[in-house]
Amino acid sequence: MTANYDLVIRGGTIGSATGSFRADVAVKDGKIAALGLGLAAGAREIDATGKLVLPGGIDTHAHVEQVSAGGLLNADTFESATTSAAFGGNTTLISFAAQHRGLDLRKVVDDYAALARRGALIDYAFHLIVANPDAKTIREDLPALIREGHASIKVFMTYDLIKVDDEPLLDLLLTARQNRALVCVHAENHGMISWMGKKLVEKGYVAPKYHAISHPRGSEAEAFNRLITAAELLDQPIMIFHVSTAEGAQTIRDARGRGLKVFAETCPQYLFLTRHDLDKPGLEGAKWMCSPPPREESDQDALWQALALGDIQTVSSDHAPYRFDETGKLSAGPNPNFKQIANGLPGLETRLPLLFDALVSKGRPEFAGRGLDAFVNLTATAPAAIYNLPGKGALLPGYDADIAIWDPGKQVTITDAAMHDLTGFTPFAGRSVTGWPERVLVRGAEVVAEGTLHARPGSGRWLPRKGGPAATPTGRLVAEIDAQRNFGAAILD
Amino acid sequence: MTANYDLVIRGGTIGSATGSFRADVAVKDGKIAALGLGLAAGAREIDATGKLVLPGGIDTHAHVEQVSAGGLLNADTFESATTSAAFGGNTTLISFAAQHRGLDLRKVVDDYAALARRGALIDYAFHLIVANPDAKTIREDLPALIREGHASIKVFMTYDLIKVDDEPLLDLLLTARQNRALVCVHAENHGMISWMGKKLVEKGYVAPKYHAISHPRGSEAEAFNRLITAAELLDQPIMIFHVSTAEGAQTIRDARGRGLKVFAETCPQYLFLTRHDLDKPGLEGAKWMCSPPPREESDQDALWQALALGDIQTVSSDHAPYRFDETGKLSAGPNPNFKQIANGLPGLETRLPLLFDALVSKGRPEFAGRGLDAFVNLTATAPAAIYNLPGKGALLPGYDADIAIWDPGKQVTITDAAMHDLTGFTPFAGRSVTGWPERVLVRGAEVVAEGTLHARPGSGRWLPRKGGPAATPTGRLVAEIDAQRNFGAAILD
Amino acid sequence: MTANYDLVIRGGTIGSATGSFRADVAVKDGKIAALGLGLAAGAREIDATGKLVLPGGIDTHAHVEQVSAGGLLNADTFESATTSAAFGGNTTLISFAAQHRGLDLRKVVDDYAALARRGALIDYAFHLIVANPDAKTIREDLPALIREGHASIKVFMTYDLIKVDDEPLLDLLLTARQNRALVCVHAENHGMISWMGKKLVEKGYVAPKYHAISHPRGSEAEAFNRLITAAELLDQPIMIFHVSTAEGAQTIRDARGRGLKVFAETCPQYLFLTRHDLDKPGLEGAKWMCSPPPREESDQDALWQALALGDIQTVSSDHAPYRFDETGKLSAGPNPNFKQIANGLPGLETRLPLLFDALVSKGRPEFAGRGLDAFVNLTATAPAAIYNLPGKGALLPGYDADIAIWDPGKQVTITDAAMHDLTGFTPFAGRSVTGWPERVLVRGAEVVAEGTLHARPGSGRWLPRKGGPAATPTGRLVAEIDAQRNFGAAILD
Amino acid sequence: MTANYDLVIRGGTIGSATGSFRADVAVKDGKIAALGLGLAAGAREIDATGKLVLPGGIDTHAHVEQVSAGGLLNADTFESATTSAAFGGNTTLISFAAQHRGLDLRKVVDDYAALARRGALIDYAFHLIVANPDAKTIREDLPALIREGHASIKVFMTYDLIKVDDEPLLDLLLTARQNRALVCVHAENHGMISWMGKKLVEKGYVAPKYHAISHPRGSEAEAFNRLITAAELLDQPIMIFHVSTAEGAQTIRDARGRGLKVFAETCPQYLFLTRHDLDKPGLEGAKWMCSPPPREESDQDALWQALALGDIQTVSSDHAPYRFDETGKLSAGPNPNFKQIANGLPGLETRLPLLFDALVSKGRPEFAGRGLDAFVNLTATAPAAIYNLPGKGALLPGYDADIAIWDPGKQVTITDAAMHDLTGFTPFAGRSVTGWPERVLVRGAEVVAEGTLHARPGSGRWLPRKGGPAATPTGRLVAEIDAQRNFGAAILD
Repeated sequence: MTANYDLVIRGGTIGSATGSFRADVAVKDGKIAALGLGLAAGAREIDATGKLVLPGGIDTHAHVEQVSAGGLLNADTFESATTSAAFGGNTTLISFAAQHRGLDLRKVVDDYAALARRGALIDYAFHLIVANPDAKTIREDLPALIREGHASIKVFMTYDLIKVDDEPLLDLLLTARQNRALVCVHAENHGMISWMGKKLVEKGYVAPKYHAISHPRGSEAEAFNRLITAAELLDQPIMIFHVSTAEGAQTIRDARGRGLKVFAETCPQYLFLTRHDLDKPGLEGAKWMCSPPPREESDQDALWQALALGDIQTVSSDHAPYRFDETGKLSAGPNPNFKQIANGLPGLETRLPLLFDALVSKGRPEFAGRGLDAFVNLTATAPAAIYNLPGKGALLPGYDADIAIWDPGKQVTITDAAMHDLTGFTPFAGRSVTGWPERVLVRGAEVVAEGTLHARPGSGRWLPRKGGPAATPTGRLVAEIDAQRNFGAAILD
Repeated sequence: MTANYDLVIRGGTIGSATGSFRADVAVKDGKIAALGLGLAAGAREIDATGKLVLPGGIDTHAHVEQVSAGGLLNADTFESATTSAAFGGNTTLISFAAQHRGLDLRKVVDDYAALARRGALIDYAFHLIVANPDAKTIREDLPALIREGHASIKVFMTYDLIKVDDEPLLDLLLTARQNRALVCVHAENHGMISWMGKKLVEKGYVAPKYHAISHPRGSEAEAFNRLITAAELLDQPIMIFHVSTAEGAQTIRDARGRGLKVFAETCPQYLFLTRHDLDKPGLEGAKWMCSPPPREESDQDALWQALALGDIQTVSSDHAPYRFDETGKLSAGPNPNFKQIANGLPGLETRLPLLFDALVSKGRPEFAGRGLDAFVNLTATAPAAIYNLPGKGALLPGYDADIAIWDPGKQVTITDAAMHDLTGFTPFAGRSVTGWPERVLVRGAEVVAEGTLHARPGSGRWLPRKGGPAATPTGRLVAEIDAQRNFGAAILD
Repeated sequence: MTANYDLVIRGGTIGSATGSFRADVAVKDGKIAALGLGLAAGAREIDATGKLVLPGGIDTHAHVEQVSAGGLLNADTFESATTSAAFGGNTTLISFAAQHRGLDLRKVVDDYAALARRGALIDYAFHLIVANPDAKTIREDLPALIREGHASIKVFMTYDLIKVDDEPLLDLLLTARQNRALVCVHAENHGMISWMGKKLVEKGYVAPKYHAISHPRGSEAEAFNRLITAAELLDQPIMIFHVSTAEGAQTIRDARGRGLKVFAETCPQYLFLTRHDLDKPGLEGAKWMCSPPPREESDQDALWQALALGDIQTVSSDHAPYRFDETGKLSAGPNPNFKQIANGLPGLETRLPLLFDALVSKGRPEFAGRGLDAFVNLTATAPAAIYNLPGKGALLPGYDADIAIWDPGKQVTITDAAMHDLTGFTPFAGRSVTGWPERVLVRGAEVVAEGTLHARPGSGRWLPRKGGPAATPTGRLVAEIDAQRNFGAAILD
Repeated sequence: MTANYDLVIRGGTIGSATGSFRADVAVKDGKIAALGLGLAAGAREIDATGKLVLPGGIDTHAHVEQVSAGGLLNADTFESATTSAAFGGNTTLISFAAQHRGLDLRKVVDDYAALARRGALIDYAFHLIVANPDAKTIREDLPALIREGHASIKVFMTYDLIKVDDEPLLDLLLTARQNRALVCVHAENHGMISWMGKKLVEKGYVAPKYHAISHPRGSEAEAFNRLITAAELLDQPIMIFHVSTAEGAQTIRDARGRGLKVFAETCPQYLFLTRHDLDKPGLEGAKWMCSPPPREESDQDALWQALALGDIQTVSSDHAPYRFDETGKLSAGPNPNFKQIANGLPGLETRLPLLFDALVSKGRPEFAGRGLDAFVNLTATAPAAIYNLPGKGALLPGYDADIAIWDPGKQVTITDAAMHDLTGFTPFAGRSVTGWPERVLVRGAEVVAEGTLHARPGSGRWLPRKGGPAATPTGRLVAEIDAQRNFGAAILD
């Protein structure tokens, strides 16, 4: 009898966002062909007895082969980044096409697309960073690019060279609304951070640990509130990136409670680190510098609670790989103050193991015994839904066979040396976790198996994204706006 | 080639809580054997082309073959009730074993179990109504019954003959905590309702519509808050039944935001009716009388929003079938005032079509294009998770083959005559809905097919339930309690 | 030249709720005749140079010559209580006419009035405790007594023998509304306290300190919320007595923010003590037992904040004098558990010095340098306004010359021996305060001067109170109620 | 017998923030010498029988003889403005010394001081508008000017030519903190207003009524929240000017509930007008244009409630007099769109009569029968306390004899012609009010009596203000900041 299937993974436990179950997985033509017990033979078979067969991770926030506004190139190429991601259990990555001031957005997208096409080993998409919201960008390039499948914009409310002020932010929200894109935002109050940084440096508080102090807690919730007010005015969905504080999470919860389409992510650095991690001798603390900074333990608890409540729906890496040398964090010369040190942490490879360990192996109490469901949902199913990645995020017939096979009992101590990205360090070095992805398949093809890379650069595919439910205005608010303003929705559409 | 499977349902679209997909479903020995495209043949095949293949509905709140505290028998037997439920797309029912004052709980459970064993056509379980919280009930019967698989208690905070006061409520919450059961509650302030009813009748406001006035809005949120305070003291999960007001939903949201394990349901009568439905000539309005009463349109909106936010997780029928005659609602004799009319509506058969129509066919905006996912989740997946019904609530390999095949385009006008229960009327008569369950299977066996009943009484099975995640205390709160009180958790355990 | 005035107090600084100022005070016929500089001579003159001349304190909550529901007589007579109050700087006292089950309210009032008429040295009024809310009490006695000048009712939501349940509470609120009286409430959840007490005693946690544990924090905010819900239903003003927790204060703030007429008091035991004060060897802790119990330091901060914000408007003593012997707290016999020990603390004489020290001498930061204004307002002006005591609470022309002359620099250590009440101890013994009332005048006549009593029993006068603004419904809510219920305000009036 | 007093006002009822009372008022050397009954004779006597004798109004927000950033001179001189204010019952005015970009603050203050010295008929002070927050202004001029008695700064968060961004706002807050000044803020989100204005004009919505639409409701609460976050960071008191929305008031209430020193004012235009008042034919609606614009009736209710709760403490005029001609509102030429029309309303003369009518004559229900107390407090006592005007704001011995004698029964219809300012119109024309100030004295000297002006320009005196309680940080927050940041309060002081 000829094989019905290209591949059958037998004997494992399949995880989903709503429960796990014992079943085999059959793959054909890169897609899940069947789930079941006693399925027909595959041309190839993998024994997953005692293993968890999970949808591959989707990392929706990573900076890859990107040049900062200040001219600093980050350490990873698409090849190195997606290799690291794959070793960390991921099968899809959303990184950035980053426009800087004066750049043409269309050209920027073409450039990043070319880099990714050449290097990526897993599937990918782009958020469009807009730092030059001029008329051409807003009225021509963005509508066209969104239509072509780049249905998410990224905006910074802080950083001198790329920040977008309140007024052009409204332009971007409106364009997104008219063309059905999600607007993702780095929301912190620029003035407060800038002011605090200057004051600290002026008074000689220059060590890396003062980076955390220089981002006052309130600068986060303030910017969230401002952004939400703008989004509410135009009834436009938003995604708030890297929530770090309890007050930030509460601001989101309040907005969602009012019926607004506000989505949110957090990252392992806010769930597993605190600002005290920056308090190291000399410049060592710079390895833990990212923006917003890690906060307090009580914030960690609040963020886990927000994940359990659905107020925050995803956990991304915000991978921002700067080496700890003069090509990266220390590029400003000797004895830099914290304002001169590049922000950002690597995280593609550690995100899933850290979360698996916390949710599944250690069983965070907020998830009440359903940690595996939460793990799948937060890292695969919800990201696919929010960013509209059809065929991704779950193991169901007809879906892409993007699969990570986890050994739930494997104990691993994270080390700098074990990482496959090019940053050279990981802020999680020294931590031991239980559970590790030992085999990763993208569209049915093995990318990683038992510690070895099997895919070639360029095998990853670009994923067009066309808006989707999370990017669609509610319409309900527009009705209210109309009623109040008695001049129709003309101003919005 | 012999058939691998007992049954294959081909060509349909399978619905889940996290997305729908085209696949066939194979059934063997009453369970889902496989999902996939191109599955091997079944001994029997059903063509589901153009249809939705959904997990059968789970109705978690229905009064069946139950005698009220006042001695009034409701209209349905397990046979009629489960027949009606099956015609309405349901495959599992949780009804009540209702203790009254002076009754022995063990005996009560045995009696209801016997009735269900004889009559039920779909699978079932019981919530244990406790109205006689004496020492034997609390310390002997409940622990034993919970261990045996009756892991949910129902308590009334109102109704003269069965209400449980604050102090015995704490006894019940503690027993539930110690034995891992969920406590479900009808939470309304008894004194306010009683007082208002007397005042109204005294002043001649006696028509059925005054029933709605006699349950002040605040009597709901007040009781929720009191119940939540008690549950918080003991760190015990609770399920709040039939939320009817915006303030009630907000009280739940606030509690959940504080990390409490508070679950909630609402019912079609609160999503589709208002108190104005009670305003009919003569006694006709009595058909729309239930407790709490339907409220305002703004409450409907708030409840839909609470469902979308996850603050309310399930929609049950609260089927409480009293005929509109002297055997039911009008048993008190001629010219009754509203306090003398039995409360309760039938709803087993209409619950799912009404929800399907609103969520899927009409697409309530709160669900942003994911109405089908929400429908499956609210009516099958979430109930199975909260009430711990393993193998129910989703169509996955190894799960029970409890399946409803829906024709999403079928238009039906609900009529009294079409209903299969014995109440004789439905408060939704005259409404037209799009989408109807045309074929229902329980554990692979057809119960309803194209308008005909195929199962025999007694074919339903009792489902033992053993607590589960939703019934488990967080433990986190206990740690806080201990810290504050410095006398250990001894008082709780 | 003949004296224009009976008395002139010269050279002092006069305090008011809105600022202090240097002026003389002239008294004639028991009333303030003039305030000014260079006033004409008085028949008598007092030199107040370097002193503060303040309105006498109004203590609006004290139990005097009262028998508990359990038959325990408290230690003070009107003579001893008002003597103690006067030495503590007070000129007006509101105590209770306490109905128990089965007693006739009219008779109760007459009895207390006779006692007070004979013994009181300062002016006084009564709150009517209703523990027997039968038809005669509600429909006859209360309306008549309110009309006669007893415009405040006191209700207990806890204590087995006197508590009023939710339904009769509504009767009382409605009667108060119809007759314009304020309803004062001891609001704690009875069931939670009773249950917790039994559990603690059952497990051997019997020492006085467990009294604090037996009143769960939530039992306060819960009862506040329930009471507020009832009051909101009927648009009836309420006064919540002795707030002890941060959550309680927040519940009040929320209600006031919604426009409800909710007033509140706290007491020195909640501002200066914590539950750790009950943790003493043997039964000694019983001296610090009161209900609700003192809480945490963080609650103290929250209560000061609530006073500064106006959420709580008054600070009373809740003087409840039980001796620390077999006639009082230890009447239950040897080795009592905490449930068998009488609750209540003395406080008439210490209330004002403790507050003065905190607000004026130490300058609590919440009051931002206006501590003296706050002291006058919280202890005199606001109580007079809320309880409608015309001519009391401020030093203004035409007002009663109820005056306390304070030495702001006098340092005093509080001792049991120095107290003039009959309790035998004070929970504040050992504390040192700065500022002491050295001379107290009621209607121009000296009651206390430099440590000596000058007034005779019976010189105090009963103060009729006729409702007043704080006891008047808003009317606004009724309009809303009518609109919603479409059956008119008939049910309320 | 020689007269003891320069003046005695006999037979009136004196109003205060905490009650009114019958008494005569004696004045000597410009100050209140005595209050009392039967006071000795004055050299002059005024019969106030049947009248209310109130502290003169303090208007804390008025633009006088000021040039806008765009070069537009407002219509009033100090002479005309203070004349109008006096006719409206006011005795003190705080206007602005308005720095524009590039101007030297010290010079600006000197210039305004010279104008006021020459023209003012009533007492006055200045808020220092800072629009050029350079190093000299912040580090030299402001500290010196605050020390000299200008203890309040005004900042605009909107208006192109004068707005201060988040970072310099922090500089100003810190300088205010270090030197003990209050920071008053026009807080609206500049970007939202600018964006909306452009969109409206672009689409042809140009009539004056679109001015109201161009200030989205959310732009107010957003800016309040941002400002409060900044003030909280530095523990610096703030005064939020002209609150117009319910959400704005709620944001303030929330901040105060957290213990922050947030003060607020509203104005008659937000209490008595709505945005519908701008909906007039042609350009007529421009007369009702001010920023923020009048809102909805529900906002009016929320603002009255906020006044009653103490969340908003003062009601000023925000007098901003632009004539309705080419010298004022219509200076942009023919057919201006609403963005080209000057914002601002006159209001010095109508503020008190409108408030008196609402609070005293009509008796707003929020004030529960204490409308006269509220009137005095909101318009005199509270402003004097918040802005630290010793000797002002109440009629007490030693205070300035700033007195307005009101005829509480006088009915007046407001007309353009009756106003004494130079604007030429009043937005309240046509309204009838009951109660009018018929005689006004500043430091004992009559300024207005029975419709005639008696004072000469220049008779008003400048009032130095030295910080005071409302401008003092709590210190409590700094302790928290220190604890969190572990680098001391050095950054703040």
